[in-house]
Amino acid sequence: MRKAAMKLYYCETLNPRKACAAARFLQADVEFVRVDLASGEQRSAEFLALNPNGKVPVLQDDAGTLWEANAIMCRLSDAVASDFWPHDHRQIDVLRWLSWDASHFTRHGATLWFETLIKPLFGGEPDVAVIEDAKTSFRLHARVLDDHLAANSVAVGKTLTVADFALAAALPYATDADIPLAEFRHIQKWYGRLEELNAWQNPFPA
Amino acid sequence: MRKAAMKLYYCETLNPRKACAAARFLQADVEFVRVDLASGEQRSAEFLALNPNGKVPVLQDDAGTLWEANAIMCRLSDAVASDFWPHDHRQIDVLRWLSWDASHFTRHGATLWFETLIKPLFGGEPDVAVIEDAKTSFRLHARVLDDHLAANSVAVGKTLTVADFALAAALPYATDADIPLAEFRHIQKWYGRLEELNAWQNPFPA
Ligand SMILES: N[C@@H](CCC(=O)N[C@@H](CS)C(=O)NCC(=O)O)C(=O)O
Ligand SMILES: N[C@@H](CCC(=O)N[C@@H](CS)C(=O)NCC(=O)O)C(=O)O
Repeated sequence: MRKAAMKLYYCETLNPRKACAAARFLQADVEFVRVDLASGEQRSAEFLALNPNGKVPVLQDDAGTLWEANAIMCRLSDAVASDFWPHDHRQIDVLRWLSWDASHFTRHGATLWFETLIKPLFGGEPDVAVIEDAKTSFRLHARVLDDHLAANSVAVGKTLTVADFALAAALPYATDADIPLAEFRHIQKWYGRLEELNAWQNPFPA
Repeated sequence: MRKAAMKLYYCETLNPRKACAAARFLQADVEFVRVDLASGEQRSAEFLALNPNGKVPVLQDDAGTLWEANAIMCRLSDAVASDFWPHDHRQIDVLRWLSWDASHFTRHGATLWFETLIKPLFGGEPDVAVIEDAKTSFRLHARVLDDHLAANSVAVGKTLTVADFALAAALPYATDADIPLAEFRHIQKWYGRLEELNAWQNPFPA
């Protein structure tokens, strides 16, 4: 069997999800390698040699290993010479939304995902105060994104970029994690279009 | 008087600090415009038109306004054609560290800064549980950076990049905010070299 150019270590969780979706969207030449977070495989010496943070996703190729899902999405885009990570005047704007997303949007969506869906899997109790805080912060900032998407079909320019996948990272879990999207109809419309992509709907190997 | 090409809106706080330091380091053609956060100037209609998030820093030029300190540092680098934001093989690695920093390093350093130094200014009480959590997370991840800097003089490649300024953002406040750096001597050495830069020592207008 032919060897894929890159290996993408993943699990069926929030951060690897956007990296896997990007790999499929870009039809990048990757082999998907599942890491069993539930059994603690990410803390094995073998995996820590790939990523000292003990987290997925990780991308591995002949040049070495790369961690951080956003960097992996950009690397995959470069690998197929796509402008999903653009190298023209749009690039700074993509950086703006990646940075804003990490600090002000998916940060809070991911907290809701973790408290509501992940903690209970490990016998933990969702922290009600943390959840309320995250909802308040999410709403405050979602307003900014909603206004932006009222006038723009995607985060930057006219086509999908890594910024859209980053901003959408927590939204597949919106219903189950009770992420407050009801007030934000432009976000909902934009996200609805993203959901029509097979790569976004089905990011993980079957 | 000649008009500067760009305006940089700032206050003497953590996030604008790295943008101002980058502007000085790059000798970019910016006019510094102070926003008085203490009196709530960031919530004025005039300022919200520049940044709907009501936060500094903001960079303004003829093309429009840009928020998010990391994006501003990259934009300033592009403006002077520096490789402080590199456009070669180093770029993906810079993205890795920017993303890691936002989620795992300055995130916790900034929490310590906020709880210890900013909250009390507004009559708030530092939250002891939040502080302990942030210290634990900071230590956990600082180990990864410390090991990286044991073998590297800067975050990426051989010269300073936006990644170094991002990673260092909370460290000017380390002593006052009790950020636990004592165990991490490679971080301390690397940060010591950054402190020798006048642009980093004195980022704000007098
Ligand atoms: N900042 C990293 C975060 C990666 C991350 O938090 N991954 C989680 C799954 S969503 C993980 O591997 N957790 C396992 C662990 O921390 O033990 C990224 O963006 O890739
Ligand atoms: N993600 C933003 C954060 C900017 C930020 O939090 N700025 C703070 C000062 S350090 C601010 O303007 N706070 C005023 C407020 O929120 O009212 C960035 O990286 O630039």
